[in-house]
Amino acid sequence: MNLTNRDQKHLWHPLTQHKTTQDALGIVKANGVYLFDEFGNKYIDAISSWYTCVYGHCHPHMVQKVTEQVSSLDQIVFAGFTHPPAVEMSEKLMEILPKNQQKIFFSDNGSTTVDIAIKMSLQYHFNQGKKKLKIIAFQDAFHGDTFGAMSVSGLDVYNGPFSDVVLKVDRISVPNQENIDRVVCDFKNILATNEVACFVFEPLVQGANCMKMHEAKYLDVLIALAQEQDVVCVADEVMTGFGKTGMYFASDRLKYKPDIMCLSKALTGGMVPMGLTTCTQKIYDAFYADEIAKGFFHGHTYSANPIACSAAIASIELLQSKEIQDGIQRIEKGHQEFVLKLKNHSNISEIRTLGVILAIDLKLNIDRYGKDRNEILNHFMSKGIFLRPLGNTLYIVPPYVIKEEELLMIYNTMKEFIDAL
Amino acid sequence: MNLTNRDQKHLWHPLTQHKTTQDALGIVKANGVYLFDEFGNKYIDAISSWYTCVYGHCHPHMVQKVTEQVSSLDQIVFAGFTHPPAVEMSEKLMEILPKNQQKIFFSDNGSTTVDIAIKMSLQYHFNQGKKKLKIIAFQDAFHGDTFGAMSVSGLDVYNGPFSDVVLKVDRISVPNQENIDRVVCDFKNILATNEVACFVFEPLVQGANCMKMHEAKYLDVLIALAQEQDVVCVADEVMTGFGKTGMYFASDRLKYKPDIMCLSKALTGGMVPMGLTTCTQKIYDAFYADEIAKGFFHGHTYSANPIACSAAIASIELLQSKEIQDGIQRIEKGHQEFVLKLKNHSNISEIRTLGVILAIDLKLNIDRYGKDRNEILNHFMSKGIFLRPLGNTLYIVPPYVIKEEELLMIYNTMKEFIDAL
Repeated sequence: MNLTNRDQKHLWHPLTQHKTTQDALGIVKANGVYLFDEFGNKYIDAISSWYTCVYGHCHPHMVQKVTEQVSSLDQIVFAGFTHPPAVEMSEKLMEILPKNQQKIFFSDNGSTTVDIAIKMSLQYHFNQGKKKLKIIAFQDAFHGDTFGAMSVSGLDVYNGPFSDVVLKVDRISVPNQENIDRVVCDFKNILATNEVACFVFEPLVQGANCMKMHEAKYLDVLIALAQEQDVVCVADEVMTGFGKTGMYFASDRLKYKPDIMCLSKALTGGMVPMGLTTCTQKIYDAFYADEIAKGFFHGHTYSANPIACSAAIASIELLQSKEIQDGIQRIEKGHQEFVLKLKNHSNISEIRTLGVILAIDLKLNIDRYGKDRNEILNHFMSKGIFLRPLGNTLYIVPPYVIKEEELLMIYNTMKEFIDAL
Repeated sequence: MNLTNRDQKHLWHPLTQHKTTQDALGIVKANGVYLFDEFGNKYIDAISSWYTCVYGHCHPHMVQKVTEQVSSLDQIVFAGFTHPPAVEMSEKLMEILPKNQQKIFFSDNGSTTVDIAIKMSLQYHFNQGKKKLKIIAFQDAFHGDTFGAMSVSGLDVYNGPFSDVVLKVDRISVPNQENIDRVVCDFKNILATNEVACFVFEPLVQGANCMKMHEAKYLDVLIALAQEQDVVCVADEVMTGFGKTGMYFASDRLKYKPDIMCLSKALTGGMVPMGLTTCTQKIYDAFYADEIAKGFFHGHTYSANPIACSAAIASIELLQSKEIQDGIQRIEKGHQEFVLKLKNHSNISEIRTLGVILAIDLKLNIDRYGKDRNEILNHFMSKGIFLRPLGNTLYIVPPYVIKEEELLMIYNTMKEFIDAL
């Protein structure tokens, strides 16, 4: 029996309607930009396995660091103890984070980093004797699937059955040149209630919302307004972090820096799960008190898992290397040239790029998770490329180690597909 | 600068008031039952690093399996793909799970397994056109720290600042011989509203609630009542799973099996984080439909991470081995003899054991996270034993590989401490 059949017996896959979905393909090996299936076929991983394996799969530096850690210190309670990988990781991360980020709190995935950011924001005010319970988030945001993260997310496909049990969130449109005045007005009206604890956003790119992009200057206006009133600004950089936008973080492109940042995915370069919620000294200081109850009594058992921290150290070292920085620039340049080539294409309604992210809205009307979308996915798989359309949006986020000829192969395959629509 | 000082710059520890806490001790290595600090001292890890490293730290079988996986397949999107470690893990897990558990959904820690269990329960009814939003949980329960998990938890120390934003939960007392009639009455009254989606509980042992224990026969009464009305019964076995109670799962001791089980911690033997929410075919079937929206649109990026799955395979293989089963029996027997020896001790208000869990309530009145509790912790550290008192409860959950003489050393040190109170 092949992997596909064995899989069907007991495995329930994420984001999947098992009755209408296609069979899951068995992947047995991955190396660099390539995935290898159980039948001997190979595919370029054009979305870096959900934006995690950005240094390529099983990069030798990552493998070495993780392997060394596995046999020396696997796990230790992170309350009362510390260990070399956590300490070294914190020091490495400080080299690349916006300078206002000073403290690091651990969890295990992107959703939990957002639940933690919300809890930190609520308790930041609570500890100062202020009851602020309102949360502001963007329309069509996606921040994860635990209850807190799901509440700030605004994509109905994920929240439908839970609408009665999510936290209450005030929503504003993502600002752009046309709507900025209205958005600012809406935003000010909510702030004027004086009940807002935090403003949560994906800076510059809304990943799950088809990689829609917005400009830093408009987001800056909102952050400045929020910070004037001591509303905690939370940048969810789970998707955008670690080079995706061409800089270390999307927040590097902002004039007003967030108070809290959420990091995961590429943090550990695709090795094992880890999430971080980082914050300013000011946030941290609101919890630092003689009263024990003012502490942040949140904790996950595998917090600061040494193996995950080692993966993160290797990952940040790679991100800082010339090889990877050159790779990011090579992809950025390639994307920009491809955008110029396609921007007036009659089968495209919009094409956009930022850093290594390239997204193309096709003039098609197809469901996010339907048969038509699967056909596009299958077409690219048959050409040796794994990409995962979001409805009618084709997008890629290639590993930073991708070669020029591999990039060109992806562009050519995309263009041929679009021409033939 | 030592690790302790470097740690203080940027690391925010879980469950910690940094102003009043002691310095974090730097652990640099772990092997078998021993932790080694940066000054060359060693300690027996008497709580298996929060019940994770139950096969001892860096067990050669775990190290080998994980190391092999790290260099062959690190990560792959688990929507549309599958891979050997996920498939093999599912098959291994089915060998030891209660037979009614048929489907496995992945996440990354214990809290998320509970958020998922709650979402699954709510959508199970929603998909059948029923609006059931009530959740029943035990008083003083602990299920984790994300918003859903925190809501069902009932320990105030963790939820204080968030009481306005948690999900509404109906609470009942943990049943025992004295209160069973009243608890059944309360439980029936809540069920009678016909609005209950699920009943969430830690079976037989409430971990964070000082390892308080209850009998299977009383819990069985509640599960039977709930299941009669199609209320989803969720057993949170994050702490109790994988041998802690002497059997594979605490639910093995129940006549009425839960509909959903939450697993994490020892699942991966302390290597890397992973969580599983398992369920019956009946629960799964409520999501299996032609309508795509009836699917479970929840997903974490590192779902079924191959490295974590490999750790889980090694872990289950060890659990099934004679060496480990003998170890569990050796600890059980040791605990039972120690309980007999101490049960009428004048400085003890209660002593209890189940499987490898031993808990002793001292006749002291001390805070959960205060100075007095730290002094007890320090006393045992000075004797070469890491245990972490919960207020006035001393407890141990030793790695299954602990030797008889190491166990005796722990018992003797505990007895000396208790005698001297």
